[in-house]
Amino acid sequence: MIMKVYGATLSPMVRKVVVALEMKGLEYELDPVIPFHTPEGFEKISPLKRIPALEDGEVKLADSTIICEYLEDRYPDVALYPTDPVLKAKARWFEEYADTVLMKVTAEGLYFERVVKPLLGMETNEEKVQKNLRDNMPSTLQYMESVMPENGFLLGESLMMADIAIGSNFINAGYAGFDPDAAQYPLFAAYLQRVKAHPAFQLRMKEDAKFINKE
Amino acid sequence: MIMKVYGATLSPMVRKVVVALEMKGLEYELDPVIPFHTPEGFEKISPLKRIPALEDGEVKLADSTIICEYLEDRYPDVALYPTDPVLKAKARWFEEYADTVLMKVTAEGLYFERVVKPLLGMETNEEKVQKNLRDNMPSTLQYMESVMPENGFLLGESLMMADIAIGSNFINAGYAGFDPDAAQYPLFAAYLQRVKAHPAFQLRMKEDAKFINKE
Repeated sequence: MIMKVYGATLSPMVRKVVVALEMKGLEYELDPVIPFHTPEGFEKISPLKRIPALEDGEVKLADSTIICEYLEDRYPDVALYPTDPVLKAKARWFEEYADTVLMKVTAEGLYFERVVKPLLGMETNEEKVQKNLRDNMPSTLQYMESVMPENGFLLGESLMMADIAIGSNFINAGYAGFDPDAAQYPLFAAYLQRVKAHPAFQLRMKEDAKFINKE
Repeated sequence: MIMKVYGATLSPMVRKVVVALEMKGLEYELDPVIPFHTPEGFEKISPLKRIPALEDGEVKLADSTIICEYLEDRYPDVALYPTDPVLKAKARWFEEYADTVLMKVTAEGLYFERVVKPLLGMETNEEKVQKNLRDNMPSTLQYMESVMPENGFLLGESLMMADIAIGSNFINAGYAGFDPDAAQYPLFAAYLQRVKAHPAFQLRMKEDAKFINKE
């Protein structure tokens, strides 16, 4: 039975899962469930009714990180986490940082305000966006810059979950009109270019373009 | 070199790590760092200056779940996660639920208000506590009751990280004067008794008693 991913792929968390599936060469179908309008009985798949969720035969899982760790454990052929315990912990830290800090700074305080709200007929709170860009974004970018390699990706030569999680969030920041300044954050800006140039992300961004930037 | 855990063990997240270390029979020392008053340079160990953090020789890690997964990967002799990918995903879900939902309902909205604030010379917002107990606690307890086994622990016969994470949060709820009603939530109340009766938790609660319930 083909796997099923619940959630709209414009969500950075859903995109994480979809990129992981594509990189692992696993077939899936998408059910673009929208938060707050989840179908009846959705709590049997995702107890908190959040997206993304995954159905893999009898297995039902919620939470992007739990889904991606499951995919790695069950379908390890294309590795998206390092196997060394120390490097794996480092990879998990970056993924957690993306799922919590970046989710707040690039998604909730920026993409949600500037892109999602207008789509829902709500008004952007640009004051909130500006406050977020002033109070939260600089320390976030400074931290990102401080951990960036000069070449390749965070855990080495290949794109892994840590890069997918970080890239996925900054793609949404870009959709909301924000990209890190390459003069101020040269390593991070160059890294993001490499992440976005990866075929798995190119495919996602091509799909995204069907839904946004339509003005 | 002996491992070092940063954070006060009254924190449910720090307790998780300490119980994991004790169950794995790993030696450690505690540095009871308090959030908001972290020592100079603490961001080199915990980039967001949060507790718990762990130093294991050259390895520096933050985030209770990342630390516990690292301990499992690096010191697997006493297993605290299942090895089967499906059960491991289930275990991770319960741990994530504890670290997010329970952390809000039992720690932020209850223990922090009734225990931590008075210790800091601040006033308990009992209205906030009552609202939390009314709006958030029932659905949380209903969910817990719905997933509970009649015997043993969540993943089988032995206490594992999922149980440690859930138990650790409800110990703090107990310190704040709240325990699930055994008539309404019989499976969960009995489960919590089993978790708290475990020697690793008995030891922790004995240590906790030095700091609280001193009135």
